[in-house]
Amino acid sequence: MNSSHCTGHDAPIAAETTELQALYANFQAEHLAPLWTQLGNLMPQTPEPKTQPHLWRWERLYALAKRAGELVPVGRGGERRAIGLANPGLGGAAYATSTLWAAIQYLGPHEAAPEHRHTQNAFRFVLEGEGVWTVVNGDPIAMRRGDFLPQPGWNFHAHRNETDQPMAWLDGLDIPFVHYVNSDFFEFGANQPEDRSTPDVSRSERLWAYPGLRPLSRLMPHPSTPLLCYRWEHTDRALVQQLALEAEGHAATVHPGHAAVRYVNPTTGGDVMPTLRVEFHRLLSGRATPLQCAVGSAVVQVFNGSGALTLAGTSYTLNKGDIFVVPSWVEWSVHADETLDLFQFSDAPIMEKLEFARLAVRPPA
Amino acid sequence: MNSSHCTGHDAPIAAETTELQALYANFQAEHLAPLWTQLGNLMPQTPEPKTQPHLWRWERLYALAKRAGELVPVGRGGERRAIGLANPGLGGAAYATSTLWAAIQYLGPHEAAPEHRHTQNAFRFVLEGEGVWTVVNGDPIAMRRGDFLPQPGWNFHAHRNETDQPMAWLDGLDIPFVHYVNSDFFEFGANQPEDRSTPDVSRSERLWAYPGLRPLSRLMPHPSTPLLCYRWEHTDRALVQQLALEAEGHAATVHPGHAAVRYVNPTTGGDVMPTLRVEFHRLLSGRATPLQCAVGSAVVQVFNGSGALTLAGTSYTLNKGDIFVVPSWVEWSVHADETLDLFQFSDAPIMEKLEFARLAVRPPA
Amino acid sequence: MNSSHCTGHDAPIAAETTELQALYANFQAEHLAPLWTQLGNLMPQTPEPKTQPHLWRWERLYALAKRAGELVPVGRGGERRAIGLANPGLGGAAYATSTLWAAIQYLGPHEAAPEHRHTQNAFRFVLEGEGVWTVVNGDPIAMRRGDFLPQPGWNFHAHRNETDQPMAWLDGLDIPFVHYVNSDFFEFGANQPEDRSTPDVSRSERLWAYPGLRPLSRLMPHPSTPLLCYRWEHTDRALVQQLALEAEGHAATVHPGHAAVRYVNPTTGGDVMPTLRVEFHRLLSGRATPLQCAVGSAVVQVFNGSGALTLAGTSYTLNKGDIFVVPSWVEWSVHADETLDLFQFSDAPIMEKLEFARLAVRPPA
Amino acid sequence: MNSSHCTGHDAPIAAETTELQALYANFQAEHLAPLWTQLGNLMPQTPEPKTQPHLWRWERLYALAKRAGELVPVGRGGERRAIGLANPGLGGAAYATSTLWAAIQYLGPHEAAPEHRHTQNAFRFVLEGEGVWTVVNGDPIAMRRGDFLPQPGWNFHAHRNETDQPMAWLDGLDIPFVHYVNSDFFEFGANQPEDRSTPDVSRSERLWAYPGLRPLSRLMPHPSTPLLCYRWEHTDRALVQQLALEAEGHAATVHPGHAAVRYVNPTTGGDVMPTLRVEFHRLLSGRATPLQCAVGSAVVQVFNGSGALTLAGTSYTLNKGDIFVVPSWVEWSVHADETLDLFQFSDAPIMEKLEFARLAVRPPA
Repeated sequence: MNSSHCTGHDAPIAAETTELQALYANFQAEHLAPLWTQLGNLMPQTPEPKTQPHLWRWERLYALAKRAGELVPVGRGGERRAIGLANPGLGGAAYATSTLWAAIQYLGPHEAAPEHRHTQNAFRFVLEGEGVWTVVNGDPIAMRRGDFLPQPGWNFHAHRNETDQPMAWLDGLDIPFVHYVNSDFFEFGANQPEDRSTPDVSRSERLWAYPGLRPLSRLMPHPSTPLLCYRWEHTDRALVQQLALEAEGHAATVHPGHAAVRYVNPTTGGDVMPTLRVEFHRLLSGRATPLQCAVGSAVVQVFNGSGALTLAGTSYTLNKGDIFVVPSWVEWSVHADETLDLFQFSDAPIMEKLEFARLAVRPPA
Repeated sequence: MNSSHCTGHDAPIAAETTELQALYANFQAEHLAPLWTQLGNLMPQTPEPKTQPHLWRWERLYALAKRAGELVPVGRGGERRAIGLANPGLGGAAYATSTLWAAIQYLGPHEAAPEHRHTQNAFRFVLEGEGVWTVVNGDPIAMRRGDFLPQPGWNFHAHRNETDQPMAWLDGLDIPFVHYVNSDFFEFGANQPEDRSTPDVSRSERLWAYPGLRPLSRLMPHPSTPLLCYRWEHTDRALVQQLALEAEGHAATVHPGHAAVRYVNPTTGGDVMPTLRVEFHRLLSGRATPLQCAVGSAVVQVFNGSGALTLAGTSYTLNKGDIFVVPSWVEWSVHADETLDLFQFSDAPIMEKLEFARLAVRPPA
Repeated sequence: MNSSHCTGHDAPIAAETTELQALYANFQAEHLAPLWTQLGNLMPQTPEPKTQPHLWRWERLYALAKRAGELVPVGRGGERRAIGLANPGLGGAAYATSTLWAAIQYLGPHEAAPEHRHTQNAFRFVLEGEGVWTVVNGDPIAMRRGDFLPQPGWNFHAHRNETDQPMAWLDGLDIPFVHYVNSDFFEFGANQPEDRSTPDVSRSERLWAYPGLRPLSRLMPHPSTPLLCYRWEHTDRALVQQLALEAEGHAATVHPGHAAVRYVNPTTGGDVMPTLRVEFHRLLSGRATPLQCAVGSAVVQVFNGSGALTLAGTSYTLNKGDIFVVPSWVEWSVHADETLDLFQFSDAPIMEKLEFARLAVRPPA
Repeated sequence: MNSSHCTGHDAPIAAETTELQALYANFQAEHLAPLWTQLGNLMPQTPEPKTQPHLWRWERLYALAKRAGELVPVGRGGERRAIGLANPGLGGAAYATSTLWAAIQYLGPHEAAPEHRHTQNAFRFVLEGEGVWTVVNGDPIAMRRGDFLPQPGWNFHAHRNETDQPMAWLDGLDIPFVHYVNSDFFEFGANQPEDRSTPDVSRSERLWAYPGLRPLSRLMPHPSTPLLCYRWEHTDRALVQQLALEAEGHAATVHPGHAAVRYVNPTTGGDVMPTLRVEFHRLLSGRATPLQCAVGSAVVQVFNGSGALTLAGTSYTLNKGDIFVVPSWVEWSVHADETLDLFQFSDAPIMEKLEFARLAVRPPA
């Protein structure tokens, strides 16, 4: 693992004679293509993702989202005022990586985004602000700073801002993957949410947000999490306690000074949604993660703090709100200048379920 | 299901001739036994448990436990001042049912029960009182009213009372089952707990008691729950919310006026321990559970409230602390006079994992 | 593991004063029993099975079965002419071990055993002979030497001898376990099999007996094997090939000179039935199995060859048809004088599913 | 489902003002893209696969493969003389569907294809001929007519023709999917197979090809099948027997006159490889499959017989060797003129494991 990723081998191919040219023309006419001329492209020695390493600055993202708020209405048809990260390697498509969608969504005072549902798995993560309720199957769920709100595929959902302030947040979905495997279904729901109530606690939480307790009325299998809001106060407390336990001499953290939780489906202990792994990491000042690469791609947002990123051999500063993408099998490491909180999602469940997962950790120099 | 349980069939057997008597004597001499003379006993048409339906009154249990506190010391060898329910059908053995152990354990002021570990799965449930810490692998866990505290097999544990008041609680284990299948291992630990600290919150909770969050340092399989305390405030709130949701018109309860949670392993969503299912039920005043019977046996304690039990056709009043056992395939139903809180455990995971589970619910007359 | 199994500890108990005697009498009156006086019995340091090591000689078994054939009719009520092994440690009950039933079943020329079904899981294993068809849900399955024929719980089954010769075979069931957990249900079927056809190949085999092929019409879950006959020619060939592969230098056997297969459910790759593990072992002349003990009990029958058994420190010669039982956590080893074929079944799935499995292998001296 | 597949909705978008144009230019400069202008493309109402329905004629395929045999050598670098189906909708890439690779591979007399391994899952299926051995991890496996030979990811494999006749077969892999998710690893092995032995039966079969028998030395998990050859005689016999059982009045087929098997991993009962489902279907003369569509794509080859295909509303004749692809959510049905044998593979395991599977069967008109 000496370079950030490996190049494919060059296949020696048969000399191109006239006869061969005729054969290849015949292949083309019959909708055929030889393996031997393109093996290195089709089957490289190590992953050669089109997805490029890239970092987006939050200040730029937010300014453009705000401007879109002034110019572009929200409503039926466009559905959402969401601005997608368009990976430089993916030809302008609004794909953060080849499998993952990430966008900043912006909702002005008293605006509402209409109801729909789709097979794509989605979530919201709130960097700052509050005042929006996402309504899932009629259950209004308050969105507040630090909250993680999964919306598994095929649930109707709408969003509405009930305040005089705009609000923006991060959307994550498996849109590119679903589109690639052609499993996308979409249905419109109500144009306007009728219920405009603003409860502090959603029905989903009232039913599910208790450690280790399962409603007896909900024993059926849940391939995706039935808990639709993971509140910041729990995430933060879990990280604080891991670090406190470490300080008291007990095993609790991933590495010294590095606490982390995975958001899980409480009915399985596994990933929140079938295609998406979502985690929150806290790195104490002066600590760094090991340089490592994994099969599959990831998107990371800085929730708080500052530090430095090494990604495919390039260095970046990291500040609040910045978002970067890690392509498959590309090395990366993060260093915290001040305590760094990172929200992170990836397509790792796809890799694990299909037996493609690999991880390489570079031994410290 | 016309009777509370079914009787076996009587097998017509061969006339007992002298030759047959000789054959049977030869069987016996060779350690053999014919099926045809005992089929009805060995393979009844429906379960014929030796376990008898029975109810123990809390006031009597507690008085005897207190008396034992005066007369019997706690220490190495006897290990615990635990008084087991001895089912009338099981010949005096301290077995609540053929598979389950249930006992009241009593610890006087400043007493301690020494450390040991065993393959038997155990838990504590606290009817009232506080001041005892159960110490599991060195982690002191406060025991308070309404708390459910699992102690999965092969974890070292001790108990210590750090107050001037005695405390009693319910112990549940799979002792009879483990003894029957001969999988019992036992090891002594420290005679006295060295650490006498009295934290409000255990390390287990600090690591695990967050809804839907899993420490990244704990991704290995956990066949038993790693969460060692399920606090009453969560259980109570979950039940309150189920009933409130029902009142608001949402599906949340098992039956109208009947809220219930199952204590689950947060890493699987399944039962807390491999052999034990543990649940908490709340029945509103005037409500009753359907008359039903299931394969497997259960133990139920009234945590609060009052009502009436119908068990195998016999009626009992129910008051706080009373404990009753339900043998396999015996009909039972509970009626609440005032809101009735029931703590319940059973061997249902054994039945389900081995494909023996059956449930029959009698349609309302 | 210096002795064949361990003894429990003796619990020092409180001096028996008059007051204490009164307390204990009160316990008894209230159907209670103290833990501290019986801890060593209830929770021994290592398993203390009642099941005794024992070996039954085939010649004696067969002679008595034949005699029963002369004296005892087969028919409705007694159902089967099956003579159960009655473990000397289990008080005369027809239990081979505390969890397992093993019997020799005998059917005279043109006799039939009536149809019934039960939740107990069963199988037949044929030491010698042929001419009987076991009819499972109307599917007649020929029983021949070396065949293993599972009959998972709740399938109707009958047996009929269509020849002029008697036939005997080994029956294995989980009767003691099912009776202990009170999950036994039993239903009578037809008194006489109407279909007396004698196909060479059963419908079950025609549908399922292909390596790695699953009928598209049978994709539903099958907790027990849908393949109702495992023919000797496959078992023998698998063992021959394992030993041949070993001789050619390839990993294939369990130990050098020790080939073995497990009969598995082709829809899961796991045990054939939820409670029973069934295997066939072949040990070359001069080879021995390691001295080992496991949690759970087993029954072994010599299918062919001769050798010596060491069981709980006692030695036995082994000859064709002999059957021995191995109690939980008792050491045993087998040595082959001439190539030794062993048919073996155990309750290991119970231990594994409930997380009680343990194995100890004594290192070679 | 009135059309063969659905079109996406058109999103009404904001009028393109100068200010908006500036915003969009800023988006582009910052590698961002709005959702609202491309929603219908990104998230269509039903799948809109780029993969086109298409049928390749075997006579054309085989002629071109033979010609390639004359002009193109096989060896290190190009690795295989494989000619991939290049779906007309996928821009000339050698992809049969967006997820699946299918190719005809051709090996002349005494030629050999060098050893390599890759994470892509592969298989061979033999339409006709014999004489080639595929060598997997040093185990030579004869390839004969009708055989299905899986080569799960990361096993070294080579092929060699040991006869004076050329041989061609169908290759199936998950190359496009693996490339898309960037999980592709590739390693070269030996340039020439040293072992040129030509056993009738492979070591894999000698160890694994017994119905319901698992070597005790192979109890570890096998995410992919350890059985590397599924012989035609078993497949054919299973189909013959399903149809015979149906004729005798027993449930055995998928539909009347339609027998089918799925090739499964004998250690799980599930699909042979993590990404690929492989089946064989037999349709009696005069029978048709229901018109249906499923999420995910499939490739089908006619092994024998003749009939007609309706695919996305277009009709095709079907003859031996013809190959067609079915894109996601496109309707298709097959009719048998004479008994039609179909070999079929798809990406269905991906859809099922990630919870995207959907099937729609059109009710008969």
